[in-house]
Amino acid sequence: MSLLVIGSVAFDAIDTPFGSTGKIIGGAASYISLATSMLSKNVGLVAVVGEDFDFDFVENLKTRGVDTQGLQVKKGEKSFFWHGKYHMDMNSRDTITTELNVLGDFDPIIPADWKNPEYVMLGNLSPDVQLTTLERIESRPKLVVMDTMNFWMDIALDTLHKVIAKVDVLTINDEEARQLSGEYSLVKAARKIREMGPKYLIIKKGEHGALLFGENEDIFFCPALPLEEVFDPTGAGDTFAGGFIGYLASVGKTDFESMKKAIVYGSAMASYCVEKFGTERLQELTEDMLNERLAKFDRLMRLNA
Amino acid sequence: MSLLVIGSVAFDAIDTPFGSTGKIIGGAASYISLATSMLSKNVGLVAVVGEDFDFDFVENLKTRGVDTQGLQVKKGEKSFFWHGKYHMDMNSRDTITTELNVLGDFDPIIPADWKNPEYVMLGNLSPDVQLTTLERIESRPKLVVMDTMNFWMDIALDTLHKVIAKVDVLTINDEEARQLSGEYSLVKAARKIREMGPKYLIIKKGEHGALLFGENEDIFFCPALPLEEVFDPTGAGDTFAGGFIGYLASVGKTDFESMKKAIVYGSAMASYCVEKFGTERLQELTEDMLNERLAKFDRLMRLNA
Repeated sequence: MSLLVIGSVAFDAIDTPFGSTGKIIGGAASYISLATSMLSKNVGLVAVVGEDFDFDFVENLKTRGVDTQGLQVKKGEKSFFWHGKYHMDMNSRDTITTELNVLGDFDPIIPADWKNPEYVMLGNLSPDVQLTTLERIESRPKLVVMDTMNFWMDIALDTLHKVIAKVDVLTINDEEARQLSGEYSLVKAARKIREMGPKYLIIKKGEHGALLFGENEDIFFCPALPLEEVFDPTGAGDTFAGGFIGYLASVGKTDFESMKKAIVYGSAMASYCVEKFGTERLQELTEDMLNERLAKFDRLMRLNA
Repeated sequence: MSLLVIGSVAFDAIDTPFGSTGKIIGGAASYISLATSMLSKNVGLVAVVGEDFDFDFVENLKTRGVDTQGLQVKKGEKSFFWHGKYHMDMNSRDTITTELNVLGDFDPIIPADWKNPEYVMLGNLSPDVQLTTLERIESRPKLVVMDTMNFWMDIALDTLHKVIAKVDVLTINDEEARQLSGEYSLVKAARKIREMGPKYLIIKKGEHGALLFGENEDIFFCPALPLEEVFDPTGAGDTFAGGFIGYLASVGKTDFESMKKAIVYGSAMASYCVEKFGTERLQELTEDMLNERLAKFDRLMRLNA
């Protein structure tokens, strides 16, 4: 089924205790597109880059079947750039530089072919742009999934609430769920956030897994795969979201039981993402590798052999 | 099958953001005995208390079928006392008072009836006492489970290593696993700790669940049940350990697959423990309540409906 992805396509520079990168491909929609393209063959990307972007990556996405008609290239302008540094525990990070560049006045133009997508993934981005995107879609999609972060809660809470009210699934981390709801208990936080609009809430807990909250107080928990090393956590949440909606689009479903499987797909892909810098590991990912890791999740989670 | 429990039986005083207790029943072996007695009908307790202890609790344990022959009562002496204060997040706590009292020179005397137990639970206690206990057992038990904490790693690491080398299952939390192994990655930590002796390692992550590591790099993850409120976390780890070994003793098994179920039993019991102060909630626990929560864990974890 058709899946529209919107979010940043950008440059990152990443410092970790294991090493540093120069400018490499980053951005929520880069990770999401790579992940969804493994699962769903009808993916359209809406994003904006500058003239300085690495267009080999765009060709790569095309080879993977991603429709890049909606990727605007701004002449004479520069791509969004983020430079971050991870601490020793790899869980916390500092932003060293953020250059908004083309993202500062991003007007999401949706190609005619993509005005009626069945699935929509609103990657982490200004809630204004997320809202405009939804307004420009002509028929209600089967499923809208939204990712966001604390930054938008701090500076654009009103607009954020407007977007949240229109989506089916919201994905945020545990601290963000607490901030958005004002509740410390994640059970109470989930109840309050679901009252804001989304029928489903996914709380991402990084190395501690993810919780899916649905109707009738239904809860499903998916662990993170215990790994030898986390090399670079950048993009893990985006990859998770991409695997999640990519799986659902591939099976054409939107029910709680399918979302459980979708979360395992997202977690399996995210477990690869963190093994190398940036999108490198995701670009190497094959179907066999994905299946191998899905089997590991099954062993990790299965109570009855 | 016969199950010997050793650990502290003591008084606690607990301050939380929700309120404070006076002196109430505490101690690892109190929680463990209450938990195991729900599952296994052949439990023997080895511990020491002072004359000041609340002997109604001992009668209560007897009613539940716990054999208290091995509970020494020291005339003219006082029971171990711990006073702790939890912070707002309920995850961290400060010790306000520790009075060792009778625990200072505890000589664990094992009644003749209990010198050949099939299962042994070494609750958190000085590794010297844990070691003496094992030396006084006449035949190798089917399974020895040991719980310990960072305090003993700080002050008695050599003896701790001697005990660890003799046990089948070690249960510690994630920070303690990192401290004991010198590895940040829990996968690497588990490998190193298993090389110290125990065939199985359980890493307790509190609200983030528990990991079981076994042979051939086998890993199983059990989530914690997301709760509305955590009222008092005291004794949750002991209750978990008690539920774990109590289940195994009740089915007479010691294999990895059975341990997976045992961890769910331990987690279900611990999820009740934290709902009220001290042992209060565990004392109310019925088989129906336990089954209800086991069903909740099943829904939380089950991928295929």
